[in-house]
Amino acid sequence: MSETQQVSTVGARLVAELVGTFVLVLGGVGTAVFAAGFPGDPGNPVNVGFLGVALAFGLTVVVGAYAFGPISGGHFNSAVTLGLAAAGRFAWKDVAGYLVAQIVGGVLAAALIFAIANGQPGGYTGTLGANGFGEASPGGYSLLSVALIEVVLTAVFVLVILGVTSGRAAAGFAPLAIGLTLTLIHLISIPVSNTSVNPARSIASAIFGGGEALAQLWAFLVFPIVGGLLAGLIFKPLLGGLKPADR
Amino acid sequence: MSETQQVSTVGARLVAELVGTFVLVLGGVGTAVFAAGFPGDPGNPVNVGFLGVALAFGLTVVVGAYAFGPISGGHFNSAVTLGLAAAGRFAWKDVAGYLVAQIVGGVLAAALIFAIANGQPGGYTGTLGANGFGEASPGGYSLLSVALIEVVLTAVFVLVILGVTSGRAAAGFAPLAIGLTLTLIHLISIPVSNTSVNPARSIASAIFGGGEALAQLWAFLVFPIVGGLLAGLIFKPLLGGLKPADR
Amino acid sequence: MSETQQVSTVGARLVAELVGTFVLVLGGVGTAVFAAGFPGDPGNPVNVGFLGVALAFGLTVVVGAYAFGPISGGHFNSAVTLGLAAAGRFAWKDVAGYLVAQIVGGVLAAALIFAIANGQPGGYTGTLGANGFGEASPGGYSLLSVALIEVVLTAVFVLVILGVTSGRAAAGFAPLAIGLTLTLIHLISIPVSNTSVNPARSIASAIFGGGEALAQLWAFLVFPIVGGLLAGLIFKPLLGGLKPADR
Amino acid sequence: MSETQQVSTVGARLVAELVGTFVLVLGGVGTAVFAAGFPGDPGNPVNVGFLGVALAFGLTVVVGAYAFGPISGGHFNSAVTLGLAAAGRFAWKDVAGYLVAQIVGGVLAAALIFAIANGQPGGYTGTLGANGFGEASPGGYSLLSVALIEVVLTAVFVLVILGVTSGRAAAGFAPLAIGLTLTLIHLISIPVSNTSVNPARSIASAIFGGGEALAQLWAFLVFPIVGGLLAGLIFKPLLGGLKPADR
Repeated sequence: MSETQQVSTVGARLVAELVGTFVLVLGGVGTAVFAAGFPGDPGNPVNVGFLGVALAFGLTVVVGAYAFGPISGGHFNSAVTLGLAAAGRFAWKDVAGYLVAQIVGGVLAAALIFAIANGQPGGYTGTLGANGFGEASPGGYSLLSVALIEVVLTAVFVLVILGVTSGRAAAGFAPLAIGLTLTLIHLISIPVSNTSVNPARSIASAIFGGGEALAQLWAFLVFPIVGGLLAGLIFKPLLGGLKPADR
Repeated sequence: MSETQQVSTVGARLVAELVGTFVLVLGGVGTAVFAAGFPGDPGNPVNVGFLGVALAFGLTVVVGAYAFGPISGGHFNSAVTLGLAAAGRFAWKDVAGYLVAQIVGGVLAAALIFAIANGQPGGYTGTLGANGFGEASPGGYSLLSVALIEVVLTAVFVLVILGVTSGRAAAGFAPLAIGLTLTLIHLISIPVSNTSVNPARSIASAIFGGGEALAQLWAFLVFPIVGGLLAGLIFKPLLGGLKPADR
Repeated sequence: MSETQQVSTVGARLVAELVGTFVLVLGGVGTAVFAAGFPGDPGNPVNVGFLGVALAFGLTVVVGAYAFGPISGGHFNSAVTLGLAAAGRFAWKDVAGYLVAQIVGGVLAAALIFAIANGQPGGYTGTLGANGFGEASPGGYSLLSVALIEVVLTAVFVLVILGVTSGRAAAGFAPLAIGLTLTLIHLISIPVSNTSVNPARSIASAIFGGGEALAQLWAFLVFPIVGGLLAGLIFKPLLGGLKPADR
Repeated sequence: MSETQQVSTVGARLVAELVGTFVLVLGGVGTAVFAAGFPGDPGNPVNVGFLGVALAFGLTVVVGAYAFGPISGGHFNSAVTLGLAAAGRFAWKDVAGYLVAQIVGGVLAAALIFAIANGQPGGYTGTLGANGFGEASPGGYSLLSVALIEVVLTAVFVLVILGVTSGRAAAGFAPLAIGLTLTLIHLISIPVSNTSVNPARSIASAIFGGGEALAQLWAFLVFPIVGGLLAGLIFKPLLGGLKPADR
């Protein structure tokens, strides 16, 4: 994804990351807040459930990467930025700017969701899709389970990204494959951790999600970053011989 | 999407917009009317819910844009037409014809849905997928919430369209990315506004949706158009350096 | 889809249509019979519902057209074969062979589904996904409603096929777009007619679906064929200037 | 898929098969264990059901084949490896290594799922997505029904793979088509056999699935392998004239 970055200005690249992460949080967390548990009747429930949330998160990356990926590379995820840097595919000097743009985009989206959610009768009392472990996990999973799943799934995510953006992968399909990986990750892990694999997304939810969400936020910074860095470091030795696309 | 338009006659372009918007309303609103709340048993509900409606709206654009996009550019949406014109990607002189074709196509589809729906036992008493705020919002969301979500999501839609049809995006994937964006938009916002982001679709539903739907129709003309124009105006300054594809 | 057909033998083309229609019926009707109404608990139903059936029918065409389309053109549907012939895209002299191959493939799949279904406790007592109107319609829709939806949706299907296989459409995406159109069609119309748009699929279900299914079968031969032929005839005058791909 | 294999080292190819099968089991079986039956309320169930599991299994192959397919060919399935060898598309001398890598990857993923699942309140008491017939079949289907569906669906899977990787299929779409075939297969057959079509996946589940799962494991080695070999042998005579891609 990096070969065209040099022709975009630094400003456009940061705007692309900000807008892309805004779309990611608006789409994924917005679907979780507005549509996942929408009340219906037994026999014909209309809510989109975890499947809808998984689809939404993935689609944000599919469409964001097709639309804005040619400008910034389409990370929209702090663990991805760090993992790509660890793999030598992204310049360390550009990491800080990307992380800030991602967090700003995510927080703006969360603020918008929060404002809209307060316009329903009775206002909004949820946790804005915050991640959690123990009693804050959707299924009550332990910190160890959450650590395992977040580290492994973030590593899988970054390995897939490194694979599909290598020189031998089919051109043009990378955004589709990467976004669908995020859908897959959510299908597996919403019940366990409410799925982070993305510190920027977790920060955005936690700010509006209340005290417990903020108290547990450290886990969703540490585990995804560990997974992303791990994948960045092991990719070349394990699956070597691949190099970034020059096309 | 504009590079091949000159080789189609004006008539074929308008027919393509009419047919495409017919398919959009038949598919999206038709699924909402016939299948979203189809009664089943608790334990094995068979209705497609909001997820099915979101998928249907998106697929109408995916397939319409692959099939008819090469002729007309594949807007099927008045806010998109206006947004592309504001961005300098579509000629202002062609806007009026497109808007008329879209509305005609949408209304024809709504009439067909209405006729078919009346062929069920007891006839049809719903609002034909009309958009609404306040008590007419699926989740009872306020006018302000509806305004926020319609303006922002239409702007996101047009930004994605401008991005994926720019010269640096992967060729051939634009219809897929654009249609999936519409699925994403519906996943987020059906509970809030029943999702417009498209005045032609809202007009079509409102005509057959009863008095309240018509009384609130102004909102689903104004907000999507504001969002579409906004995106058209900010795209180049914010994400500049991209230009339309010459391929 | 026709440009490579001459290099396949007649036998391989007929086998491809037979296998493709076998997969269509096995996938679509099989999902309807085994998975659509699988009993679960209120609160966590596991059945795939109409959404799963719609997805299954569409995927059969996506994968069948990618795998076997290069051999036969990937019709798998008698109304499509007739519509393409009416549009001048398929030789009338080859129509009869294709129709026979499609029906044989479909009936073999239905027989297999019937045999497997009888291996559940208590055997199988359903109608094997048969189409119907009136009391045999899933939602009790009238014959007129069923006629309207089958004619229009088959016409839309064939228009999309003609559009995406014309010379100006993005290469390679046709199977995806065509299959997703079939998913869209099912999302709209399963509640109305249980969705045919394909005489071969209707014949296959009716043979194992019991007396009422056979008595109503005429409707699902006539309406899809009318829709397919109509689309084949109006495509060129309405959306003219497109020609089949030479690539 | 074989044309680029010679440029990867043997080690990288085996790692790619191991990682790909790890992702397949983690994604498919993980979704089945954590999310398929997640408890919710009647009226707004949030569990992903069989549809979510079907989607997850398919997505593992889509993303795995795009990311790691250029290295190993992207089998991730012992029946596929054997079927491709029978069709002359894969060297028999490389089969044993692939089978071992697939089983190791699958078992590692199953062990991880088992560890995570034990971190929920009350621990884990399920069968880890094991396949079964008779009383161990989700719908109580007989051994004969299970044999029929596993043989036929594995054969369909391998026929599709052989078709989409032949020289005349659209370049780049093979991973998408193959993965979506696996989704289709699960949509049809989860109720019957819990869907194997892949001995490595069945072994992984059975090891952690308890005594009955192990006692029935033979069926999910034999039937998929029979189906895969059958498809490998009949493909060329039935659908001849196709050859592997040289691109």
